[in-house]
Amino acid sequence: MRTQALLLSLFFFLFLIGFSAAHSRKIRSHKPCKRLIFYFHDIIYNGHNAKNATATIVGAPAGGNMTILAGQNHFGNVVVFDDPVTLDNNLHSPPVGRAQGFYMYDKKEIFTAWLGFSMVFNSTQHKGSINFAGADPLMNKTRDISVIGGTGDFFMTRGIATLMTDAYEGEVYFRLKADIKLYECWSL
Amino acid sequence: MRTQALLLSLFFFLFLIGFSAAHSRKIRSHKPCKRLIFYFHDIIYNGHNAKNATATIVGAPAGGNMTILAGQNHFGNVVVFDDPVTLDNNLHSPPVGRAQGFYMYDKKEIFTAWLGFSMVFNSTQHKGSINFAGADPLMNKTRDISVIGGTGDFFMTRGIATLMTDAYEGEVYFRLKADIKLYECWSL
Amino acid sequence: MRTQALLLSLFFFLFLIGFSAAHSRKIRSHKPCKRLIFYFHDIIYNGHNAKNATATIVGAPAGGNMTILAGQNHFGNVVVFDDPVTLDNNLHSPPVGRAQGFYMYDKKEIFTAWLGFSMVFNSTQHKGSINFAGADPLMNKTRDISVIGGTGDFFMTRGIATLMTDAYEGEVYFRLKADIKLYECWSL
Repeated sequence: MRTQALLLSLFFFLFLIGFSAAHSRKIRSHKPCKRLIFYFHDIIYNGHNAKNATATIVGAPAGGNMTILAGQNHFGNVVVFDDPVTLDNNLHSPPVGRAQGFYMYDKKEIFTAWLGFSMVFNSTQHKGSINFAGADPLMNKTRDISVIGGTGDFFMTRGIATLMTDAYEGEVYFRLKADIKLYECWSL
Repeated sequence: MRTQALLLSLFFFLFLIGFSAAHSRKIRSHKPCKRLIFYFHDIIYNGHNAKNATATIVGAPAGGNMTILAGQNHFGNVVVFDDPVTLDNNLHSPPVGRAQGFYMYDKKEIFTAWLGFSMVFNSTQHKGSINFAGADPLMNKTRDISVIGGTGDFFMTRGIATLMTDAYEGEVYFRLKADIKLYECWSL
Repeated sequence: MRTQALLLSLFFFLFLIGFSAAHSRKIRSHKPCKRLIFYFHDIIYNGHNAKNATATIVGAPAGGNMTILAGQNHFGNVVVFDDPVTLDNNLHSPPVGRAQGFYMYDKKEIFTAWLGFSMVFNSTQHKGSINFAGADPLMNKTRDISVIGGTGDFFMTRGIATLMTDAYEGEVYFRLKADIKLYECWSL
């Protein structure tokens, strides 16, 4: 009797596994295997702040230039950045890493951007990088981009980063809060 | 007797699982867990179509400008876009989302591009984004790029998008058909 | 007795599976399912080498131009490339594929770049593409970027590529060695 029940459970289980393998539909909980919260600080070069700037315009539409963000919600501006990453919202806190990459303003009617960048860590706490890509509809209070990979401590990771604009000052400074939720973690 | 057969099956099964875990070689069917077909429409700014344009040149090689695509198969042109996404091939159909990001023409001898973009949805049918990256050898009838992640309804997804040039008009308009096949779907 | 032991193993096993499903923490070996080593060769257009150049500057900060890499460690330069991929370190070896995409120099103080590109293969040995993204702190002897996806023979793959600068000549030529380790392989 027990054996038969066991046999049944086993086949049911094999069926489940087989099914999930065939369709690769992962019924996983949405609980992150790792969660990290960071702030990063972007100071755009405007022709007068070369010393402090962490980002510079490198592409612009016709009529644009590299020290003034373009009209029409900056549509067509490409910005390359190397921003300090901090644990709290203070620009002057000791950076724990750098956010390096680019964003492009990609819509005429409202502010929207597309982001491709890495967070690069080289401290006792974290070594390695987390790579991000995705659309940033930056007028939304929160917006999600993809964690598309990682190296070092973040080997092969995947996940979601929820971005929030924590502060901005005119067209020179903004600060993003990144709530990084990793759902694929590869143990070492 | 039955018990022993069961024992054997179980150990065989454990062995299979162990093997696949150790090598991480996924023997999965190539049947998508989700499939979506969309069209997107790209109207490049040429200096005279500011109102209708959905894309603009933002980078060019030496001697290039931002309203005329460069010679040598546009090698070196970077284009930022915010294109309407439709369910059929009609530019004037109600858009169900936006394709936002960039492409770069990256070869002198023939047309080839590199794409990084997101499809962003905010309708009753789909909420969230799908993120894409990859090479687009656009003279090929079909070509595959990667789905590198997703958010919202497309949380953590991965897959392949097969692109086809559905139409083009000179150097101002083209329409792509994207056949999106998702092979990793995370259920909610 | 045997049955009970079996029952115990089964429940232990189910528990393990359930646990790993819930947390999606993959305890996988770090042995690649596929490993590939390639070299790629980047010849940057400097105004005098149009015939041989495989890459061109397409973005620059204020004051920059498209034939001379900018000061401050080229901060803000965007380069689009279509580089030959070879099996050994000889530029004149028959290419087995092309590396196509872009890099951006993204730091003022030292050389660092951000890379987004594909290796595209169309030979008897390999058909398909491998897509890469990540930070390239190019003064380090080795640095890791992410393999974010693939198509064709590299369908749905993920992994890590370790880059090494194998040679460089002034600001015109450099050669990278890419040691590509794939940890997710989808069998056909």
